Amino acid sequence: MIKIEKKIAVGILGATGSVGQKFIQLLSAHPWFEINELVASDRSAGKKYNEAVNWVQDTALPPAIADKTVLDSKASLKSRILFSALDAGIAETIEKQLAAKGHIVISNARNHRFHPQVPLLIPEVNPDHLQAIFTQHFGDGHIITNPNCSTTGLVLALKPLHQRFGVRKVQVVTMQALSGAGFPGVSSLQIMDNIIPHIKNEEAKMETEPLKLLGSWNGQEFVHASMLISASCNRVPVIDGHLESVSVELEKSAGADELIAAWEEFKALPQSLQLPSAPRQVIHYFTEPDFPQPRLHRNLEGGMAVSVGRLRPCPILDYKFHVLSHNTIRGAAGGAILNAELLLAQLGEKLGLL
Amino acid sequence: MIKIEKKIAVGILGATGSVGQKFIQLLSAHPWFEINELVASDRSAGKKYNEAVNWVQDTALPPAIADKTVLDSKASLKSRILFSALDAGIAETIEKQLAAKGHIVISNARNHRFHPQVPLLIPEVNPDHLQAIFTQHFGDGHIITNPNCSTTGLVLALKPLHQRFGVRKVQVVTMQALSGAGFPGVSSLQIMDNIIPHIKNEEAKMETEPLKLLGSWNGQEFVHASMLISASCNRVPVIDGHLESVSVELEKSAGADELIAAWEEFKALPQSLQLPSAPRQVIHYFTEPDFPQPRLHRNLEGGMAVSVGRLRPCPILDYKFHVLSHNTIRGAAGGAILNAELLLAQLGEKLGLL
Amino acid sequence: MIKIEKKIAVGILGATGSVGQKFIQLLSAHPWFEINELVASDRSAGKKYNEAVNWVQDTALPPAIADKTVLDSKASLKSRILFSALDAGIAETIEKQLAAKGHIVISNARNHRFHPQVPLLIPEVNPDHLQAIFTQHFGDGHIITNPNCSTTGLVLALKPLHQRFGVRKVQVVTMQALSGAGFPGVSSLQIMDNIIPHIKNEEAKMETEPLKLLGSWNGQEFVHASMLISASCNRVPVIDGHLESVSVELEKSAGADELIAAWEEFKALPQSLQLPSAPRQVIHYFTEPDFPQPRLHRNLEGGMAVSVGRLRPCPILDYKFHVLSHNTIRGAAGGAILNAELLLAQLGEKLGLL
Amino acid sequence: MIKIEKKIAVGILGATGSVGQKFIQLLSAHPWFEINELVASDRSAGKKYNEAVNWVQDTALPPAIADKTVLDSKASLKSRILFSALDAGIAETIEKQLAAKGHIVISNARNHRFHPQVPLLIPEVNPDHLQAIFTQHFGDGHIITNPNCSTTGLVLALKPLHQRFGVRKVQVVTMQALSGAGFPGVSSLQIMDNIIPHIKNEEAKMETEPLKLLGSWNGQEFVHASMLISASCNRVPVIDGHLESVSVELEKSAGADELIAAWEEFKALPQSLQLPSAPRQVIHYFTEPDFPQPRLHRNLEGGMAVSVGRLRPCPILDYKFHVLSHNTIRGAAGGAILNAELLLAQLGEKLGLL
Repeated sequence: MIKIEKKIAVGILGATGSVGQKFIQLLSAHPWFEINELVASDRSAGKKYNEAVNWVQDTALPPAIADKTVLDSKASLKSRILFSALDAGIAETIEKQLAAKGHIVISNARNHRFHPQVPLLIPEVNPDHLQAIFTQHFGDGHIITNPNCSTTGLVLALKPLHQRFGVRKVQVVTMQALSGAGFPGVSSLQIMDNIIPHIKNEEAKMETEPLKLLGSWNGQEFVHASMLISASCNRVPVIDGHLESVSVELEKSAGADELIAAWEEFKALPQSLQLPSAPRQVIHYFTEPDFPQPRLHRNLEGGMAVSVGRLRPCPILDYKFHVLSHNTIRGAAGGAILNAELLLAQLGEKLGLL
Repeated sequence: MIKIEKKIAVGILGATGSVGQKFIQLLSAHPWFEINELVASDRSAGKKYNEAVNWVQDTALPPAIADKTVLDSKASLKSRILFSALDAGIAETIEKQLAAKGHIVISNARNHRFHPQVPLLIPEVNPDHLQAIFTQHFGDGHIITNPNCSTTGLVLALKPLHQRFGVRKVQVVTMQALSGAGFPGVSSLQIMDNIIPHIKNEEAKMETEPLKLLGSWNGQEFVHASMLISASCNRVPVIDGHLESVSVELEKSAGADELIAAWEEFKALPQSLQLPSAPRQVIHYFTEPDFPQPRLHRNLEGGMAVSVGRLRPCPILDYKFHVLSHNTIRGAAGGAILNAELLLAQLGEKLGLL
Repeated sequence: MIKIEKKIAVGILGATGSVGQKFIQLLSAHPWFEINELVASDRSAGKKYNEAVNWVQDTALPPAIADKTVLDSKASLKSRILFSALDAGIAETIEKQLAAKGHIVISNARNHRFHPQVPLLIPEVNPDHLQAIFTQHFGDGHIITNPNCSTTGLVLALKPLHQRFGVRKVQVVTMQALSGAGFPGVSSLQIMDNIIPHIKNEEAKMETEPLKLLGSWNGQEFVHASMLISASCNRVPVIDGHLESVSVELEKSAGADELIAAWEEFKALPQSLQLPSAPRQVIHYFTEPDFPQPRLHRNLEGGMAVSVGRLRPCPILDYKFHVLSHNTIRGAAGGAILNAELLLAQLGEKLGLL
Repeated sequence: MIKIEKKIAVGILGATGSVGQKFIQLLSAHPWFEINELVASDRSAGKKYNEAVNWVQDTALPPAIADKTVLDSKASLKSRILFSALDAGIAETIEKQLAAKGHIVISNARNHRFHPQVPLLIPEVNPDHLQAIFTQHFGDGHIITNPNCSTTGLVLALKPLHQRFGVRKVQVVTMQALSGAGFPGVSSLQIMDNIIPHIKNEEAKMETEPLKLLGSWNGQEFVHASMLISASCNRVPVIDGHLESVSVELEKSAGADELIAAWEEFKALPQSLQLPSAPRQVIHYFTEPDFPQPRLHRNLEGGMAVSVGRLRPCPILDYKFHVLSHNTIRGAAGGAILNAELLLAQLGEKLGLL
C-alpha cells in the first residue's frame, strides 16, 4: 500500500446534489483525500454548505463541511483533483474548462465516457485504460470517467467470466433503486405500489458501456469488446441497490462450479495495491436460494463489493444469475473515488500529486 | 350471448384463503353464478364465514356471504360446479374425490395442470382443449385448471404473436406482486425497500405451462408447442399486478407494427361469445414510453385485460416488450371464472348444467 | 331528489394538476354536470388536454376530455359554474376575477376560506352557511370553498358529537397520505421507509377551520365555535386516505354507546336531498379492533363516506378514536362537487342555474 | 470507565427470533461481553445456529456464531448473565427457573416488568432502581427488565422535563415500525400503502410503564410517579424507528428554550460511567422544521440516542413535540445490554461477576 505523507486536497463539483452528497459522505473520513473545495451552481455559491444543501444522507453532515462556503464553478480552484457530480446538461463544458486549467477531473457524468481519449474506468476491470490520459489534449489537465450505475455491477460480474470463458451474449433486466434518479427524482406517487418499466437512455448505456470497459487500450485508441448485450431497465420501489437478472452465453463451455470459482477467486489490481476503497473480496457469491437482496447485501464491504447468486442453466443462453451492487456507492461516488485512488497509486508521482 | 334462466349454484373450496376471497369478491355480483357453498378446512368448518375469515379485500364482505356456515370438504355438496382455491398440498386428493362424486372442479391449484386428460385452459388461448374433459376418468365429474398467475399474462401476450409469426424463444424476467404469495405470505420485513429474487417452483412453471397452453389437443392427448422458454422470477413490493420483461425470437420475420397489430386485433372465442368476465379488448397496447405500470393498468377491464408496451428490437432475440396482468384476477380467480363461463357456454347443455 | 333536465356545463380551473385530474375523474360520469371547459396555465393553454397533462389517476383518461383544448384563465369562459383546483399562489386573484365576471367559483383553494362572506362548506355540517353568498360583493358571481383535506374528515366525525354533546377540546394527530401533497409532491427518497413529521401550514388550518365550520352564520357574519383544537400533522407512505388519531373532551358527559349512536344515526341535508355524491351513510363506525385502515376503507361509498373506529376512554380528555377519510375525494374534489350539488339543489333556481 | 480484564461469557435466550438476532448483532463486537451460549426452542435445539435461524439483519452473521450449537432452555447453562429475548408466552416461567438456578436474567420480555421487586430499568432514567434486585427471592439469581420499545423513547424524552419542570399529563400518538412486531410479524399485504391503527396491549404498556420508570425505589418498594398518560398506537410502513407525537402539561411553567436546554444538557450515570453502549449525547434536539425522521435519525449514536424536534406550544396542554428512537436497539436489545453494563459497572464486584 502506498504511503500518503499529507492528505491531498480535493474539490467536489455539483456538491449539493445527491451524488455530490455521497462524495462528501465517503470522502469525509478518507485516508488519502481531504475535502477542500465545494462547488455548486450560482444559486448556491456564496452560501454556507449547510444552507445551500438539502442533506438527505442517513449520516450527519460533518460540521467542518457544513461551514464551508460554496464556490462557483468559475472560481479559481486550488485542488488539483476534482470529483465531478455534475449533471450531464452542464458537465461537458465545465469539465473540459477545468481540465484546461490543469485540474484532473474524476467524473461521474456520462458526457465524456465515449471520448476516444478518456478512460471509462473500473479499477478491477480495465486499470490499464488509465494510460490513455497521456494522449488527452484538454490542456494540462485530464478527465477520467466511471460508468453508469447499472453498468458497473454488471461488468464487475462479467469480468471474471469474460477473462476465463469469454462472454458472447448478455441478456440483462434491471430492477433499479430510486436513488439512481437523484433528488427529488421519482415522485412517491409514481412509484409506491408500482414499477416504472423505463429509465431514459439507460438501456443504451448498458448495451454500449460494457464494450469499452471489457475492451482494450492499444496505446492509441480503445478497442471495444465484441459482445451482444440486450438490456431492459425498470425502476422499483427500493431506496438503494440495483438488482439485475442476467443470462449469458459463453465462448468456452464451463461448469457452474467453474463460474463460481471464477467469481470467488477474482482479485485485481485494487486488491493487490490495497487501495483504501477497494473491497477485499470483489464478488461475493451466495448459495442461499433467494440471495442477493438489495436491503441485505447492498452495503457489503462499505457498498463497494458486488453480490452474485442463483447461478443456474439458462434454456436459451448458457447461464442465468442475479447480480446486485450499490448504485450510489460502487456505481457512482465510491467508484469515482476508487478511480482516483488508482490514479494516485499508479500515476501519483508522475503527475506530481505526491 | 347465452341466456341463463336461473343462476347456477356454485361452491368455493378453500374459501377463506386469499384466492378464495377473490372468488367471493368476483362471484358475488356474477350474472350466471350464485355462491351456494363455502368449503374450508376443519378449523373453519362450522363457523360463520365472517368468523372464519380474515377478510383482506378492499371491498366489503357481502352480508349474504358473511352469514353462511363454512362446510368441511367431506360434506356432501350440492353445487355441481366447484371453484377450487385449495393449497397445492391438499388439492390433489380433494379435487379428485369431488370429481369422483360428480362435481366439475374448476381449479386454480397446480396439481392437475399436467395431467394428460386435464385441460390447462385460457379461454382466449386454447378453448378447444376443453374437449379433453370427455376423456377424463375421475368418475362422473371433471377437472379443469387454469395456469399459474405469472404464466397467464405471458401466454396471453404470446398467443397473438405465436399464431401469426410463430414464437421460437422466450426470455422472461418477472417482477411479481405480493398478493401472489397469498396471506400472510411475504413478511413486510422481508420486502420493504427490497426485492426477493426467487419464487419457489415459479420458473419451472413458466418454462413448461406455456408449452401445453400453446400446444394442441388431438382428441386423445395434448401435443406441446416446441418453444424454448427461460424464466427468472422476482418478488417486488407491489400489492397486485405481475409485470414481465420479455424478449422473443419469432419464426417469421415481422415489423414492430405487425406485432402491435397482432395484439390490437386479437379477439377470441370469449369475446365472440360475450362471456361475462371476458375483456372487450384482450390486449391493450400502450405507446407511452413508460407504460404499462402495475398500479395504473392492473385493473383494466375489471382486471381481465392484459397490458403490453415498450415494443422494441432486442439485440439478441428479435423483440423486447413488457407485459402486465392482474395476478389474482386474470391470473387466478378471474381466470378460473372465465373458464367456467366458457364451459357453460360451450358444454352447458351437454353436461346438463343448463 | 331534484330533476335535472339538461346537464349543466362546468369548467375546471387548474385542470392539469392532481386535484384537477380528480375533478375530471369524478365529473366525467356525473348525472348533473358536464365538463365543458378545461383551464390551465399558459404553459398548457392551447394544447390538447392529453398532451398537457401527466395523467396519474388509476382510471383511463376519458377520450372526450383527452381531446379538449386547454384554455387560458384569461379566456372568456361560458360555464357559470367553475371548479377551482388552482394553487394557492394564484387562486386568490383569479378566483376573484372570475367571480367578478359572474362565475360561481366552487373552490378547493385555501385563499378565501376565511373571507367574512365566503362559506367554508361541508354540506353535512353547515349547509345554512351557503346563504352567505348573497352578501358577497365579488360582482355578479360567487365564491364557495371547501376545507383542507385533513380538516374535512375530522369535522365530519366531530359534527354528530358536537350537536349532541358539545365538543370542547380536540387533540388530533394526523397520518396523511402522499396524494395530499399533489404531484410531483413528496419525493420517493424522502418518504420510503420514513415519516415526515411536518406539513407546512397544516396544523394552523386544522386548528382554525373547524371553528368556522362548526360555528354559525347569523345572516351577516360567521360566528365561530368556541373550542380548543391542537393538531400535529405527519406525512406517511400511504397513497390515499388521511388517518387521524383524535381525543375529545365533551361538554355533556356521555357513554361510548351514545357516541357510536350519534355517528351511526347521523344524517344531514345531502342525504335527505339525495345529492348524487352524498354517501348514504355519512359515518361508518367499525367495531373491529384494528379498523379503519386507509387501504381498506378510503373508498367506502365512492370515497365520500368517513370511517371511524376504536372509540375508547381517554385518560386525559374524555374519549379517543380514529377517523379516516379519502383526502382527494371527500377532502378535495369530491367535497367541492358535493358543495356544487347542494348549491344547485338549494339555490339553483334562484341563481338561474336550472 | 471500568476495566474488564477478561470478557464475561453471556447467553442469549430466544436467540433465533428477531430480538435475539439483534442481541447477537450488538454483542458480537462488545468490549465487555462474549456470546457463549445460544438458547432457543426445542425445534432449533441441537442444530447449528445458522441452520436454525432465518437471519434477517443487514449485517452478516458472524462466523463464530453461525457454527455454535443451539441449546435447549432446560440445558445446564454456564453463563451467569443471560439476555432474554423470549416471547411473553414462555418468558415468565423460564426466566424464573433460570434465576432460581443462579443466573442474572436481563430480560426484554414484558412479564416481570411490574413485579414488585424487579427493576424496570433505563440507565439514564432510574439507575437507582437496580438496588431492588437485592430484595428479590428468585433463588440465587436475579431478573432485570427493560421497558416496551415505545415506552423507552417517550420516557427518555420526558425524564429531563420531569426532573426540571414536573410532567403532569402526556398525550402520545405513536407511529411504530414493523420490526417491533418481530418476524414474520406484519404481513406485507396488511401494511403496504396502509396503516394499522392498533397494536395489541401497547397502549396499556405506554400508559403504565412510565409511571414506574419515573417513580422511585424507596428501599422496599417502587413508588409510581403520579402522572396521566393517554396513548394511541399505530403501526406504519417503516422498517425501524418509532416516531411519537407528544403533548405535555408541566407543573412549573417554562419557556421553550428551557425545555430545549433541559434536553440538550441532559447527562446521566451511563454517560459519566462511560458505559460502552451509552450515547455521548442522550437527546439530540433538532431545529429543522421537519426533523426527526425515522430513516435519517434512528441510527444516531449506534441507535442508542433519542431524537427530539418540533417543540411548539400546545393549545390544550403546554407543549407539543416529536420524539424518535430505534425500537430494536434503544427500545429492546441495546437497552437490555445497557442495563447489563450498568449492572456490571455498579454491582459487578458485589455480584462476583468481575
